[in-house]
Amino acid sequence: MAEEKWVMMVTAQTPTNIAVIKYWGKRDEVRILPINDSISVTLDPDHLCTLTTVAVSPSFDRDRMWLNGKEISLSGSRYQNCLREIRSRGDDVEDKEKGIKIEKKDWEKLHLHIASHNNFPTAAGLASSAAGFACLVFALAKLMNVNEDPSQLSAIARQGSGSACRSLFGGFVKWNMGNKEDGSDSVAVQLVDDKHWDDLVIIIAVVSSREKETSSTSGMRESVETSLLLQHRAKEVVPERIVQMEEAIKNRDFTSFTKLTCADSNQFHAVCMDTSPPIFYMNDTSHRIISLVEKWNRSASTPEIAYTFDAGPNAVLIARNRKVAVELLQGLLYCFPPKPDTDMKSYVLGDASIVKEAGLEGELPQGIKDKIGRQDQKGEVSYFICSRPGRGPVVLQDQTKALLHPQTGLPK
Amino acid sequence: MAEEKWVMMVTAQTPTNIAVIKYWGKRDEVRILPINDSISVTLDPDHLCTLTTVAVSPSFDRDRMWLNGKEISLSGSRYQNCLREIRSRGDDVEDKEKGIKIEKKDWEKLHLHIASHNNFPTAAGLASSAAGFACLVFALAKLMNVNEDPSQLSAIARQGSGSACRSLFGGFVKWNMGNKEDGSDSVAVQLVDDKHWDDLVIIIAVVSSREKETSSTSGMRESVETSLLLQHRAKEVVPERIVQMEEAIKNRDFTSFTKLTCADSNQFHAVCMDTSPPIFYMNDTSHRIISLVEKWNRSASTPEIAYTFDAGPNAVLIARNRKVAVELLQGLLYCFPPKPDTDMKSYVLGDASIVKEAGLEGELPQGIKDKIGRQDQKGEVSYFICSRPGRGPVVLQDQTKALLHPQTGLPK
Repeated sequence: MAEEKWVMMVTAQTPTNIAVIKYWGKRDEVRILPINDSISVTLDPDHLCTLTTVAVSPSFDRDRMWLNGKEISLSGSRYQNCLREIRSRGDDVEDKEKGIKIEKKDWEKLHLHIASHNNFPTAAGLASSAAGFACLVFALAKLMNVNEDPSQLSAIARQGSGSACRSLFGGFVKWNMGNKEDGSDSVAVQLVDDKHWDDLVIIIAVVSSREKETSSTSGMRESVETSLLLQHRAKEVVPERIVQMEEAIKNRDFTSFTKLTCADSNQFHAVCMDTSPPIFYMNDTSHRIISLVEKWNRSASTPEIAYTFDAGPNAVLIARNRKVAVELLQGLLYCFPPKPDTDMKSYVLGDASIVKEAGLEGELPQGIKDKIGRQDQKGEVSYFICSRPGRGPVVLQDQTKALLHPQTGLPK
Repeated sequence: MAEEKWVMMVTAQTPTNIAVIKYWGKRDEVRILPINDSISVTLDPDHLCTLTTVAVSPSFDRDRMWLNGKEISLSGSRYQNCLREIRSRGDDVEDKEKGIKIEKKDWEKLHLHIASHNNFPTAAGLASSAAGFACLVFALAKLMNVNEDPSQLSAIARQGSGSACRSLFGGFVKWNMGNKEDGSDSVAVQLVDDKHWDDLVIIIAVVSSREKETSSTSGMRESVETSLLLQHRAKEVVPERIVQMEEAIKNRDFTSFTKLTCADSNQFHAVCMDTSPPIFYMNDTSHRIISLVEKWNRSASTPEIAYTFDAGPNAVLIARNRKVAVELLQGLLYCFPPKPDTDMKSYVLGDASIVKEAGLEGELPQGIKDKIGRQDQKGEVSYFICSRPGRGPVVLQDQTKALLHPQTGLPK
């Protein structure tokens, strides 16, 4: 085998996810085991996803990785843990056509090339590491013929980035914190698939920020060490919310869903503020978006929009249905118009049909203006992304999508 | 007595106070009984205080009050409760010179005129109601010859505005939450007077805000009703902090004092954020001031500045000593310079000697620039007030300071 010059590749696409019941705090920093369960919605990979090509060849002399075109080091323990775990599960692979035969035991010796790319701007605080580690593990599992179900794979992805475990499924996903010391029961499970509640529309406001943010890894470590509210949240508040949220999702009960989603986002940020020194992920623009949504929901007979914020100022808004989403987008653009030099196509990304439907050239209906209030916030939002709940990871059969060259195994 | 035309007056000055262990949440909305103890520092009344003149005359046909020159209604239950309680404690008063004789029972029938004025801009979110109700109760007690100690008076002022009870004393003050249903043991006591720790210098940054804020009364009601963290804070966190804070104050232990003050301010704002809908009192400027102080304290061998924020964006900064305060003011003015059309005299109020010492015309020393970072925040701070821990309420003997006319009993 060692003399051959073949390259074998798999390209996979994996979605990102946004938690509606938040993960904040580890009980084990190495294995990445959380102090509470969490629940997320998977975002449509057409709008936000990671594409990863993994390749193996006897000609590779070491493991290498390129992220968004730039080579990065794999020496960090998070990458090493994922690679070790997935290698140990590799099975026999045979491609008679190409004359490739890899035996189970070979995976420990064969080197890998990995190229990964996000279809959304990096550093936008949109959980790129979640999609990234999920995609890495999923693609390698396919390459190595790993015979494990997505939940078992999620426990590997978890060791790269906690929330990555939830990106192994579409729809709504629960990460069970588990009890075992080795973390083998700290896995993600699908609650419902992306068809179950497909009325929902998700609009993300990527908020401009001049502050450097605390990484979620160090932020949650500091919260565990210093917040006197965190353990109360994890032990007394979240368990009940998880039950209620599962029920709300099962019943497509948007009122309960909104109440729980907003309250849990706010409580996560409350715990961040209770950390010493305090962590502020939301800024005045985030606050303004919350006020807009709260006002909107009060003026409606039942809640129409849920909001949630991760470790950054970006708002993730979940609209009850498409009609609400179209109105919401109109309202957001009224309240947070693009700068004069920005065209609408680069200001509203993702599902273009919503933009079209929102009829952004026309005057905003008075009813929506009343729901929202004043307009003077140019430049506070960098751009919006329209999306929806989406499917889990898939292997891309179209070889032209691969990020590595089929002969050299180097980035295209 | 009823035919006479005399007017009898008392003018008093009462300080405002700022909590270092916060009061947030009532267990009884009518009696204003809190869910936890709190501790405050009284601010020097030379810089922040209320001046109140109370007058009684048989010629007055009803109770009337003027606040900052404008007549306001006394019909609210908070005023009514204070007036009823203090009247019921009035005693015999005799002024032989003027031929005035009031018997204990007369206080129920005699009407009052009250004029009150703050020596700082209203609506700056600087606890004007605390100083106001304390001054009202204190002045009336003097007028009516009420034979009660300041703690007993504090229980009356408390029924006007909870934190008012802490303005009956100078120095550091503790408000015991009490256990009795009638609130008679929910009183303030002095921990130490204003001479005990007179190194401290207090600098207040009045932060510009374009948001309308939630009143503390409705805010704390909403927190009690909806926050799942509030009770844990009140029952499990604050009691221990109260003990530690008393110890820190007693020992003038600035390191512990800073740690507790900052953590408790942040936790109070965390509870506000955990409220539904969430309450944001701090804004980006508040966050920036916190970052500045945290950075400053990290660069010093021991903490030099404590920060605390009440129900608004204003920062109250407590400097370890005058040397630190002078440097801090230099740093703050470097980071938050006045707008071009603002002169320094209207930008830094209060203790002018600190401004002078800070030598604001010169270039800021590099050491302070390094502690602080960049400078680009013009207009974010409306003005600063330099102050220090101060004394409790006093009666002003100088009749020219009275806010009511000695003959008519009407505002001058």
